[in-house]
Amino acid sequence: MASSSHVSRKDFEAVFPSLVEDISQAAKQYNIPTAALEWFQKSLNANATGGKLNRGLSVPDTVYHLLQRDLKPEEFRLSSTLGWLTEFLQAFFLVSDDIMDSSITRRGEPCWYRQPGVGMTAINDAFLLESSIYLLLKKHFRSHPAYVDLLELFHEVAFQTELGQLCDLITAPEDHVDLNTFSMDKYTFIVIYKTAYYSFFLPVGLALHYLQLASPYNLKQAHDILIPLGEYFQVQDDYLDAFGEPSVIGKIGTDIKDNKCSWLINQALLKATPEQRQLLNENYGRKDDVREARVKRLFDELQLQKVYQEYEEKRVRELRQMINEVDESEGLKKELFETFLQKIEKRTK
Amino acid sequence: MASSSHVSRKDFEAVFPSLVEDISQAAKQYNIPTAALEWFQKSLNANATGGKLNRGLSVPDTVYHLLQRDLKPEEFRLSSTLGWLTEFLQAFFLVSDDIMDSSITRRGEPCWYRQPGVGMTAINDAFLLESSIYLLLKKHFRSHPAYVDLLELFHEVAFQTELGQLCDLITAPEDHVDLNTFSMDKYTFIVIYKTAYYSFFLPVGLALHYLQLASPYNLKQAHDILIPLGEYFQVQDDYLDAFGEPSVIGKIGTDIKDNKCSWLINQALLKATPEQRQLLNENYGRKDDVREARVKRLFDELQLQKVYQEYEEKRVRELRQMINEVDESEGLKKELFETFLQKIEKRTK
Repeated sequence: MASSSHVSRKDFEAVFPSLVEDISQAAKQYNIPTAALEWFQKSLNANATGGKLNRGLSVPDTVYHLLQRDLKPEEFRLSSTLGWLTEFLQAFFLVSDDIMDSSITRRGEPCWYRQPGVGMTAINDAFLLESSIYLLLKKHFRSHPAYVDLLELFHEVAFQTELGQLCDLITAPEDHVDLNTFSMDKYTFIVIYKTAYYSFFLPVGLALHYLQLASPYNLKQAHDILIPLGEYFQVQDDYLDAFGEPSVIGKIGTDIKDNKCSWLINQALLKATPEQRQLLNENYGRKDDVREARVKRLFDELQLQKVYQEYEEKRVRELRQMINEVDESEGLKKELFETFLQKIEKRTK
Repeated sequence: MASSSHVSRKDFEAVFPSLVEDISQAAKQYNIPTAALEWFQKSLNANATGGKLNRGLSVPDTVYHLLQRDLKPEEFRLSSTLGWLTEFLQAFFLVSDDIMDSSITRRGEPCWYRQPGVGMTAINDAFLLESSIYLLLKKHFRSHPAYVDLLELFHEVAFQTELGQLCDLITAPEDHVDLNTFSMDKYTFIVIYKTAYYSFFLPVGLALHYLQLASPYNLKQAHDILIPLGEYFQVQDDYLDAFGEPSVIGKIGTDIKDNKCSWLINQALLKATPEQRQLLNENYGRKDDVREARVKRLFDELQLQKVYQEYEEKRVRELRQMINEVDESEGLKKELFETFLQKIEKRTK
C-alpha cells in the first residue's frame, strides 16, 4: 500500500507510551496488585502495537486533510489519541478473533492466546483493551462538545463489527463445509460489517467529530464512499489470498483450506456449472494441498482473475465518480477520500 | 436469600422480551442475515435469563426505596430496563468466565460455549451481550439528563470487573498451584473488583442516576456501604462452598480442587504453622477427593467455622452501624441499605 500519509509514523508512535501511562495510573488508583498491572501493560504493548497502523494514522491524517494545514501539537496529540483508540478496538477484535479462528500467528509472532502462560486469559485481556478506549476517551475528551458522539460511534461500530463476525462465524465454520450457506449477499454483509465500518468509516467519523464537522450530511457522504471503499479493500484481500505473490503479501493464503466465505468462492459459485459446483463441494475447506490446488485450478478455469480485474476497474471508476461529486460546502474535502483510494487502488500487498 | 423485594419478579421478567425486540430491530436495520439474527436472539435468551435476577431486580427495588412509593408504569419500565442491563453485563462476564475457567455447567445447563455448535463463537456472543447494553441505553436514555453518567458507570464498572478477573486469573491459575501468590490483600482486591462493584454498587448507582439523586456525596455514601457489603457477600460464598449444605446451596463446592484464591484458604494461611502450610501446599488445588478432604480437615482443625462466625458478626455490626449513620439529607434512604443487608445476612444459600 503506497504511503502518502502526511503524518509521521514515528510521531504517532510516540503518543502510545503516554496512553499506557494513563491506563496504568487509572489501574493504580484502584490499588491493583503489581503482577496484574505488569500483565496488563504487557498485553497493551503486545497487542495494540506492531501492526501497520493504517487505521490509527488515518485519524490525524484525515484531520490534516480537513484542516488543510499542519496540525498544532495539541491537535496532533488528540487526533493521534483517537487514532490509537481505533488500534485498541482492532486489537480487542484481533486477540479474540485469533482464539475463535484457532489462528497460529499474528504479525509474525505467536497469537497472544498462544504465548506462554496466556491461554484463555487472552479473552479478558481483549476486554481490557476495549475498556481502555472508554477510559482514555473520558480522560482526554470528557469536555469535548462531541464526547457523547465519540462514545456512541465506538459503541455502534463495535456492535456492527460483532454482527459481521457472528455472521462470518456461523456462515463458514472451519469444521463444517456447506457451500449452500454462502451467497454474495452474506459476503457483502460480512465484509461491510466485520471490516469496513471499523477500518474506514470509524477513523474518518472520529476526525469529523473531533473537528465538529460531523453534520448528518457530512457523515452520510463519508459513509457512502468509505463503506464501498472498505468493501473493495476486503475483496482485494480475498483476491490476493489466492492470487497474490506470497513474497509480496508476506503470508501464504489459507482461505480455501479454512473454508472462508471469500469473494472468490462466491464468484466461483455464481459461474459454476452443476459439475463444477460438485467439484467445489468436494474440495473446498479441506486442509489438503491437493484439494486446495484443485480449487485454485477451477478458479483459473472460471477466469476469476479477469472477473476481479473487471470488478476492480468498475469499482475504482465508481468510487472516483462519487469522490468527484462530494459536496464540500459543509467542510468535507474530496482529497481526503482520494488519499484513501490512492492508498488502496490496485495494491498488490 | 430471603426475598423482601417490593418488585414483582414476574413484572420484571415481562420487560425482557421488549428489549430483545429493540435489539433485533437494530440488527434488522443493518440487514443482518436471518440465521445470524436467530443465533443472536437465542444467545440473548439463553444467557441473560435463567439466573436469580437479584442484581436486576435491585434496580427497580432501589428506585422504590428512594421514592418511598410504588412506581408509575414508566418508572417501572425504565428502572427495570436498567436492571436488565446489569443482567446483560453479568451475562457478558459469565459466558466468558466459563470459557476462561473451563466450567462445565451454569444455572443447571451446559455452559453456553459447551452447547452444541457454539464453541468459541461464545466469545463473540459475550461481546454482543455487552454491546446490547449501550444500544439499549441509547434507545431508552438518550435524552435522560444522566445519560453520560449511565454510560460512564457501565464503562467504569466493566473495567473494574475485568481488573478483578485479571488478578483472579493470574493469582490462581487452575494448572499451577503456588500458595505464595495468595494473600488477604489480593483476595480483597479480587472480590471487590470482580464482584462487589458490578453486583452491589452498579444497581444502586444506576438507580441514583436515574432519579438524578447521584450527588457525589450520595454516591460516596452508597459506595462505602455497598463495597464492604459485597465483600461480605463473597466471603459468605466462599465459606458456603466448603461448609454449606450442598442440598441447600444447590451445588457441590469445588473451590479447593480448583485452586481458588478463596477467603478460607487465605484465612488458613494466616493461621497455619509451617507444617500445616506444607500440608496445604501438597493438597490444595488438586482434582482429588482424598486431598480435598485433607484440606477440609485442616480447615476444621484451624477452626475456620469459628473464624467465619466472628467475621460475620463483626461485619454485620459494622455495616449496621454505617447504615445507621447514613445522611439522608440529599435523598438517600437507610432502609435501602438495610434491605440489601437483610437479604444477605446469615444466608445459608
